[in-house]
Amino acid sequence: MVSESRSPLGTRIQQPGVGTTKLEHFTFAHPPNELVLESGEKLGPITLAYETYGLLNKNKSNAILLLHPLTADSNAAGFHEGNTEHGWWDTMVGPGKAFDTRHFFVICSNVLGGCAGSTGPASINPQTGKPYSLDFPVITIGDMVNAQRHLIDFLGIEKLLCIAGGQMGGMQVIQWVASYSRRVRSAIPIATTLRHSPQQIAFNEVTRQAITADPEWRKGYYYGLGRPETGLAVARMITNITQMSDQVMEEMFSRRLKESGESGHFTDDFEVEGYTKYRNDRFVKQFDANSFLYLTKAMDRFDLSRGKLFASGRPIRTRFMVVGFLSDWLYPPYQSLEIVRELKSRKGDATYCEINSKFGHNAFLMGAEEQTHLIRHFVQTDIFW
Amino acid sequence: MVSESRSPLGTRIQQPGVGTTKLEHFTFAHPPNELVLESGEKLGPITLAYETYGLLNKNKSNAILLLHPLTADSNAAGFHEGNTEHGWWDTMVGPGKAFDTRHFFVICSNVLGGCAGSTGPASINPQTGKPYSLDFPVITIGDMVNAQRHLIDFLGIEKLLCIAGGQMGGMQVIQWVASYSRRVRSAIPIATTLRHSPQQIAFNEVTRQAITADPEWRKGYYYGLGRPETGLAVARMITNITQMSDQVMEEMFSRRLKESGESGHFTDDFEVEGYTKYRNDRFVKQFDANSFLYLTKAMDRFDLSRGKLFASGRPIRTRFMVVGFLSDWLYPPYQSLEIVRELKSRKGDATYCEINSKFGHNAFLMGAEEQTHLIRHFVQTDIFW
Repeated sequence: MVSESRSPLGTRIQQPGVGTTKLEHFTFAHPPNELVLESGEKLGPITLAYETYGLLNKNKSNAILLLHPLTADSNAAGFHEGNTEHGWWDTMVGPGKAFDTRHFFVICSNVLGGCAGSTGPASINPQTGKPYSLDFPVITIGDMVNAQRHLIDFLGIEKLLCIAGGQMGGMQVIQWVASYSRRVRSAIPIATTLRHSPQQIAFNEVTRQAITADPEWRKGYYYGLGRPETGLAVARMITNITQMSDQVMEEMFSRRLKESGESGHFTDDFEVEGYTKYRNDRFVKQFDANSFLYLTKAMDRFDLSRGKLFASGRPIRTRFMVVGFLSDWLYPPYQSLEIVRELKSRKGDATYCEINSKFGHNAFLMGAEEQTHLIRHFVQTDIFW
Repeated sequence: MVSESRSPLGTRIQQPGVGTTKLEHFTFAHPPNELVLESGEKLGPITLAYETYGLLNKNKSNAILLLHPLTADSNAAGFHEGNTEHGWWDTMVGPGKAFDTRHFFVICSNVLGGCAGSTGPASINPQTGKPYSLDFPVITIGDMVNAQRHLIDFLGIEKLLCIAGGQMGGMQVIQWVASYSRRVRSAIPIATTLRHSPQQIAFNEVTRQAITADPEWRKGYYYGLGRPETGLAVARMITNITQMSDQVMEEMFSRRLKESGESGHFTDDFEVEGYTKYRNDRFVKQFDANSFLYLTKAMDRFDLSRGKLFASGRPIRTRFMVVGFLSDWLYPPYQSLEIVRELKSRKGDATYCEINSKFGHNAFLMGAEEQTHLIRHFVQTDIFW
C-alpha cells in the first residue's frame, strides 16, 4: 500500500504506509477501583484511545510502545478513514520503516489527560454528568505511564521489546523505565530531558498565560460555551517557533514578502507571519485548551534527575539509546547527555547518538535517514532474543 | 555622587552615577512643514523627549548619541526626581564609566513612535484632538533617525563623536551611518542585525498577536477606556525569555519551588514562573501597547543587508566597532559578523568584538567589565581629534 505524507517542508513523499487505521478504546479503573494518582487523588473510569499496527506474535515478544509528544495523539501512523492527514510518526512506522510493522506489533495510546479519545479534562465527570473542566485532577507523567501499563496488561504483554518517543513522549519513556524497568527490554528517549530547565518551564508558562488570558477560557469552564481559540493560537505559535531552528526558518521563508502584500499597519508583511497562523488553524479547532494546560504542567513537574530515576531501588537492565539533535535549542543535546550520564553512573547500558539535523526540535518527527537507520538497527538487535 | 543600581540578577552595585536627571522636550516639524516619513506620509508636529549628561565642549565635538532598545526610553543614566529606578544604561554612562560624562556630552532621546514623551500612537492627533491610536502612520527605523537628526541640529552639533546602542538601538546606529555617515565619526552597534531573521520576526509576531488578541486592545482604540495589560504581559514574558540565556535562567532559578507553594492546578510551582510575572508589573502599567506594535514592526521591516547600507552612494568613513555576545541566541553573533563583513566588503573601517558573557541578549545592558573596557578604549581614541 502506497500513501502520501506531507513533510513539514511541504514536499510530498511517496512511501509505503500502514494504510487506514482504527482507533480503539480501552476502559478500566471503574469505581470503586479507581486509579490512584501520584497526587493521592483517585480517578476512574479511565479510557485510553489507542491504535496498533502489525501483528503481535505468539510469544507476545515483539511489541513496541510509542509515546507521543505534547500535541500529538494515538494516531502514530497511517490515517483514519475519511482523513487524508497521516499520523505524527508515519515517517518512522510502517512496513520497511524504522519501526517495521512486518516484524513488530506497534502500539500508541493517547495520554491520560489528552483530548483525542482518552480521559482528560473535556471528558464527562461521572460524579456530575458534566465535563471535568478544572475539576479534573492534576496528573503527572507517572500517572500517564501507570495508565498505559493497564493497557499493556490488557493486551497481554508482559515485556515490551522497545519503547520510544520524543519530547513529552521521551519523558514517558524514561518514566516507564523508572517505574517498570523489568517490563522494558530497550528504550529510546529522543530530544527530551530528565527535567525541564527554567527556560523550558518559562516558555510553557507563557503558553499557559496566553490561554488563560483569553476571556473565552472562562476560568476553565468553557465547554459548551465556546473555545479559547485566540489564546490557543498564540500558544501554538510559541511552540511552533521554539521547535524550529533559525536555519530552517531562514531556508523556508527568508524574508519573502507575502504575495498579496497589501501594506497596512500590522498586516503580515512576511510569509513567516502567515505561516505561524496557517499552522494554527487545524490545531486550534481540534486541541483542547485545558489538555494543553494539564499536559504542559505535567511536563514541567517531571523530574527524574539526580538519582530519582533509580528511586525504586531495582537495578535497571533496560538497554538505552538516547537521541539528540544538534540544532534543537528547545531540548538541547546537553540534556540528552545528562540522561546518558545518569544511566552510566549506575552501570546502565546507554549510548548517545547525536544527529546533525538542521530541523531543530522538529527533527525527531521528520524520519531523517540517520535517525531511521539508528533506530532500525537498535530495535532489530533485540528481535531474535 | 554615589547611587545604587540593581542588576538583572538582583545584586545592588554601589557606583558613582550622574544623579538626578531632567527630561527635556524638543518640538519641530510644525505644519505645514511636517516631517515626510519614508512611507511618504507626513507627520507633525513632532516632539522628542531627551536627556543629556555631561557638558558639550566649545567645539561641540564631544557629543555621543545613545540609541535605546525596544522597551527603554530617553532615561539612559541617573534617575528622575522622586524615582529610585535608574536609567537603562546606567552601568555604562557616568563619571568614570564607559561613556565618561567627565569628558563627553551624552544624549539619549525616546524614539519617534515611543511612549515616554516622544510623539507616538498615544499622542494627541492635532487633526482630531484625540489620541492617534492606529491613525498614527507606519514608522521606520529611518524615520526614527531622521527625527533624531532634527534634535542633533537643534543642539548645534554638526558631527557626533560616537553613536551607540543595542538591539533596536543598534539598528538606529546602522541607519544613522547609512543616512548621515559624514555626521558620525564612530559607531558601536551592539547585539543587533542588518535585518531580522524569520525567527526574530516570528517571535515579534507572537508578541503582536498576544496584544491584539486582548479584547482590551479594542482594535487599537483603547485610550481612555482601558489598557490591554493581559496581552502586553504575555508579550513582555516572551521578550524576557528570549533575551535571557538558558544558563542564566538555570543559575537564577534552577527549579526552585516557590516558598508559599500552595499546590494547585496551574499555580506557579517554580520561581521562574513568578519571575516572568513580577517583571511584567511595572512594564505593563507604563508601556503603551500600540507603541510596542509600531516599534516591533519597524524592527521587522528594517533591512540594510546586501548593499542597502551603501544605497546613498557616499563613501562610509565612520569607524565601526561591532559587539556581539556568545550566549545571545536572539541576536546571535553571526548577525554581528554579517555587519562587519558588509562594511569590510566596501573597504569600511570595522572590527568585531565578541564577548563571552553568559547573560544572553541582556548582556549588552549589564555593563560587563569587558564591554566597558572595549567601549571606553574605542571612544577615547577619538576624543583628542
